[in-house]
Amino acid sequence: MSIAYDMIRTYPADITVDRALMASAVDTLLDCAEACTSCADSCLSEDQVGSLRRCIRTNMDCADVCSTTARVLSRHTGYDANITASLLQACIQACQTCADECGRHASMHEHCRICAEACGRCTTACRELLTAIEATYR
Amino acid sequence: MSIAYDMIRTYPADITVDRALMASAVDTLLDCAEACTSCADSCLSEDQVGSLRRCIRTNMDCADVCSTTARVLSRHTGYDANITASLLQACIQACQTCADECGRHASMHEHCRICAEACGRCTTACRELLTAIEATYR
Amino acid sequence: MSIAYDMIRTYPADITVDRALMASAVDTLLDCAEACTSCADSCLSEDQVGSLRRCIRTNMDCADVCSTTARVLSRHTGYDANITASLLQACIQACQTCADECGRHASMHEHCRICAEACGRCTTACRELLTAIEATYR
Amino acid sequence: MSIAYDMIRTYPADITVDRALMASAVDTLLDCAEACTSCADSCLSEDQVGSLRRCIRTNMDCADVCSTTARVLSRHTGYDANITASLLQACIQACQTCADECGRHASMHEHCRICAEACGRCTTACRELLTAIEATYR
Repeated sequence: MSIAYDMIRTYPADITVDRALMASAVDTLLDCAEACTSCADSCLSEDQVGSLRRCIRTNMDCADVCSTTARVLSRHTGYDANITASLLQACIQACQTCADECGRHASMHEHCRICAEACGRCTTACRELLTAIEATYR
Repeated sequence: MSIAYDMIRTYPADITVDRALMASAVDTLLDCAEACTSCADSCLSEDQVGSLRRCIRTNMDCADVCSTTARVLSRHTGYDANITASLLQACIQACQTCADECGRHASMHEHCRICAEACGRCTTACRELLTAIEATYR
Repeated sequence: MSIAYDMIRTYPADITVDRALMASAVDTLLDCAEACTSCADSCLSEDQVGSLRRCIRTNMDCADVCSTTARVLSRHTGYDANITASLLQACIQACQTCADECGRHASMHEHCRICAEACGRCTTACRELLTAIEATYR
Repeated sequence: MSIAYDMIRTYPADITVDRALMASAVDTLLDCAEACTSCADSCLSEDQVGSLRRCIRTNMDCADVCSTTARVLSRHTGYDANITASLLQACIQACQTCADECGRHASMHEHCRICAEACGRCTTACRELLTAIEATYR
């Protein structure tokens, strides 16, 4: 059981979205942010850093967006579905783009392969949560 | 001349969007993030903190989203218009919601009034930049 | 095996500190940041929010410091032991203070109990890593 | 008058440190964080990116540490002098190191020159604030 699940389990008021689904999305976002921060740094140390500029930059954007999304999803007091939904859409965009970019270097760099997979899992988790959230206000 | 403008002025490669417009958006985002971080803390110290829960939470979300958006807009290498555009949309949503929420307390709390104004300016700046970015790929 | 370990395992250059120890510290920091972000929000929804102001604020500081420390520890290129060591000291201070503050409410609020434990584990992990780092340049 | 000053001016409770001094430090920290985020990106687009790896990494660390320090200094509720002081020490270390590193490339890259100056001002501002804070509890 992750710390995100343990914390959401003990949140003292109501949450409109399923707690296990929300905690799982937070875990996946934190993993993706960590993978992207590390992958940017690994790319920076590669001999061919000149051909990894776009990868480094996309990694940095994806790390920042995933960290912020994880924070917003960890707050339930005064919840606003519109902020959460629009941020999840931005996060899906960042994760997809980063999965594609890291995927291009996956056969050469093990760190890009692992990061592309983390971004792929995060795209899926954000999409599932977005679907669940949209279902609550339609 | 702000540091954001000074830095974008000296960026050594091409930027598709107008540099002054981009720098101005970054300045406005950084101001809004600072206003929201401070307003959350001021609300936390008010006697009636119990009626400011939603305001505190929205301030925290808005601060996180604006900080991340300012970082993404400060990077130009390996630029991806889709990430920028979707993040600006999320930021507009967060700023509008926070402007509304702080606006409700503006007559009672000076910090909420100043923060609501900062969020309003940020909504406008993000919309103008989004329009300019969308014009470059249509 | 955590994503932090998987990423540090595939870092393509030398690291002066033991990789497993470093990855373990990053995991503990990310858990602590998540616990603190969530605990601030849980405190904000409690009936007695007025008596949890210091706890909320300390949680927010600890979340920010732990997130930044995790990022710095996830970078190995151009490593500077002085930055890492001084940041670990600041992080130990934040985690200790937050463990104490949450510990005061642990018997009343389950989220504070879990968060205090996460802060305690993080204090220990940062101390162990700091000792290992100091050993490399003495 | 900056937004940081406007917000601290309207903080509704007592602050032990001089408000103008605190606001000025926050302004300087936010400028330094913005300079470092931008400088990392400018370095990444330079032809000789391979010789700017350490500069990029130090910029990223300094941006993260300054952003977190600005947030902590923008909170006054439940203030803890020990957290603030130890974080300011870490920030001084990061800013000094970054000022030195960017200073090495200042004659070749205008963005490094501007960033080195911002880091230098931030070192000074953090030291002055640290001295003022230490005076309050000695």
